[in-house]
Amino acid sequence: MKTGFEIVPSGTLTTPRGFRAGATYAGIKKKTDHTLDLALLYSELPATVAGVFTRNKVRAAPVLVSESRVKSGDPGRAIIVNAGCANAVTGEQGLRDAVAMADMAAMSLGIQPESVFVASTGVIGRRLPMEKIADSVRNIALSTEGGHDMARAMMTTDTVPKEIAVRAGHYYIGGAAKGAGMIHPDMATMLSFLTTDAAVDHAFLNNALRNAADISFNVVSVDGDTSTNDTLILLANGAAGGKLIMEGTPEGALFQAALNEVCIHLAKSIARDGEGATRLIEVTINGAKTEQEAKMAARTVTCSSLVKTAVHGCDPNWGRVLAAVGRAGIDIELSKTDCYIGEICLLRQGTPEDFDAKRVSHMLSLPEVTIRVELNLGEGSVTAWGCDLSEEYVGINADYTT
Amino acid sequence: MKTGFEIVPSGTLTTPRGFRAGATYAGIKKKTDHTLDLALLYSELPATVAGVFTRNKVRAAPVLVSESRVKSGDPGRAIIVNAGCANAVTGEQGLRDAVAMADMAAMSLGIQPESVFVASTGVIGRRLPMEKIADSVRNIALSTEGGHDMARAMMTTDTVPKEIAVRAGHYYIGGAAKGAGMIHPDMATMLSFLTTDAAVDHAFLNNALRNAADISFNVVSVDGDTSTNDTLILLANGAAGGKLIMEGTPEGALFQAALNEVCIHLAKSIARDGEGATRLIEVTINGAKTEQEAKMAARTVTCSSLVKTAVHGCDPNWGRVLAAVGRAGIDIELSKTDCYIGEICLLRQGTPEDFDAKRVSHMLSLPEVTIRVELNLGEGSVTAWGCDLSEEYVGINADYTT
Repeated sequence: MKTGFEIVPSGTLTTPRGFRAGATYAGIKKKTDHTLDLALLYSELPATVAGVFTRNKVRAAPVLVSESRVKSGDPGRAIIVNAGCANAVTGEQGLRDAVAMADMAAMSLGIQPESVFVASTGVIGRRLPMEKIADSVRNIALSTEGGHDMARAMMTTDTVPKEIAVRAGHYYIGGAAKGAGMIHPDMATMLSFLTTDAAVDHAFLNNALRNAADISFNVVSVDGDTSTNDTLILLANGAAGGKLIMEGTPEGALFQAALNEVCIHLAKSIARDGEGATRLIEVTINGAKTEQEAKMAARTVTCSSLVKTAVHGCDPNWGRVLAAVGRAGIDIELSKTDCYIGEICLLRQGTPEDFDAKRVSHMLSLPEVTIRVELNLGEGSVTAWGCDLSEEYVGINADYTT
Repeated sequence: MKTGFEIVPSGTLTTPRGFRAGATYAGIKKKTDHTLDLALLYSELPATVAGVFTRNKVRAAPVLVSESRVKSGDPGRAIIVNAGCANAVTGEQGLRDAVAMADMAAMSLGIQPESVFVASTGVIGRRLPMEKIADSVRNIALSTEGGHDMARAMMTTDTVPKEIAVRAGHYYIGGAAKGAGMIHPDMATMLSFLTTDAAVDHAFLNNALRNAADISFNVVSVDGDTSTNDTLILLANGAAGGKLIMEGTPEGALFQAALNEVCIHLAKSIARDGEGATRLIEVTINGAKTEQEAKMAARTVTCSSLVKTAVHGCDPNWGRVLAAVGRAGIDIELSKTDCYIGEICLLRQGTPEDFDAKRVSHMLSLPEVTIRVELNLGEGSVTAWGCDLSEEYVGINADYTT
């Protein structure tokens, strides 16, 4: 095994040792068969915590509460999460509700309120139904198989839960995420929780999570809209034992690689299951002057409505890729630029190549469409993910609250 | 008449004196009934010229040619424009084609090649069919009623031509624009041409055009994609006689006001006829720290897919407006922020108001939807325009080249 880690079949948030989870239907979302909308994750041991949160200036109440608790540096024990209501733009009352929701979880679990993190996703500008949550928290049965139910309970317009676990030597890392809409994370994804039973140095855990987010959640986009509720929290409870994993060691490098794998898997799952999406689009920009410029270009291409609709229609309209790169605010010399769809070169040094439109259309019809632009100006290189834009996206979002 | 100018019924590019125009079908676009795709505008007198062009780093050949001619400061005599092919990302050959297209117009009109401006719109990455253009230029019959045909010949996915003329005292200003897709102008619109028979000082003409573009074309968006071909050119031929209009005079102020009216009318027409659009969205941001911040916020709201789809579905999901403002990169204090749809207040000082969902849905169903955010932080104020996002937008763009 070259990478030093392997994916665990059907792995979840509760694959790492010492974590239990469960979920219930509290009546916050509209009921369909098997709907869950309230979940709890619990660590049997106090866990070292790292988190990153939305950079949207309009920040939901649960983001404010959880971020301040992550910043305290104190160990964490639990996460409570609901779908159906974002508890964002809800004023002072919203803050009180977020704190109360964490308190309810703490009381049910018999732990300190400050050791509970809280997250919400759903409609903005509506209050949480606190009575329903109070009534339902106590109904949540925690188990070591509960990770999958938690991933399901976080879903809004998602069509599938997004989860993974990897094993790296003596420990595991598990993760779950929700996506679908308002997905253009800035420092975190809409909602993603990660667990590990590794014992990890706190400062390194922080850096490792930021590094992983930068090459995964922070380069995925469904619709260009950064959410008010983006939350990514990693709990490391050390239940696997072993030496504390530190930065700058071989063990640290392995942990970072395994964590990157988990985050990239979840980020790609979010793009693939974007609202109305039928395919994953992977955009690689090579040869930018800086990595930051490569990221700006890759993000602009993955967010372009015209690129996304062309992919949806398998229309080999590659000029839209160039137009998007051109407006990304980066340096470009067209006479040095190459553009590929799949492995087919459409532009070489700024001059269009003759191409077989049917072959390019076929590449655009695959479940994973790859677009690559070679700027040939420097060493900046980034891969980002997005999805096509379909009529169904409009239908989903035209009547979300009604 | 309070404003000092009035709209001319059925006014066009050739309403100002001393301008003639005409159009033909050259076979560049697919043929449908009454299709035109090649047009000429001619000024009988040498005209003072101002122009603004796309800031996309990938710039079409006709943009490069026309911009260098505008910069020379020499008088201009004519504009040749085609639809169906953008002559963008076409390498060195594209530049030669753009120059040759202007040469053909000059020869047909018997004027200096350098006095001709050239513009193209349509698919990126394809060469112009030069033989067709050569064969067709000579077929264009110019007349003082030809402005309307020119506006029609510029259309791509537009459903209606966009044109206007106003009379201000002894002179006229006329204008035409094309829009529909890849509309998020940065210093100019996709394609817009303006004429006036006023005699205007060159330096003032430049400033006046930039001022007008900033509050019109530069705050309109259909899909967030800045085109490679954005071109706005204003020809002032002085055929109306009178004193040279200078900056800082009452006559200058009137000219600026009339020019603003023309540009705002055309910009709103572009948004209203955005690809697949069913309504115009007008977004006003007041009380931002600076005008630049107000513009960033207004642009972000008009470009948000989630706001656009909510308007399309008449879904009173106002939280999406706040989420968009929050990610615009501007200062915001939620506890000071108010939000209105039409005249209905949905958020007051950061706290949601109770509202009648049916009444808000009705406001969102009107042909012109107004959204207003009061930031209460400063004096920055901007109004921007966009349109809703419909299933039809996806259909139009999923198979644009095929």
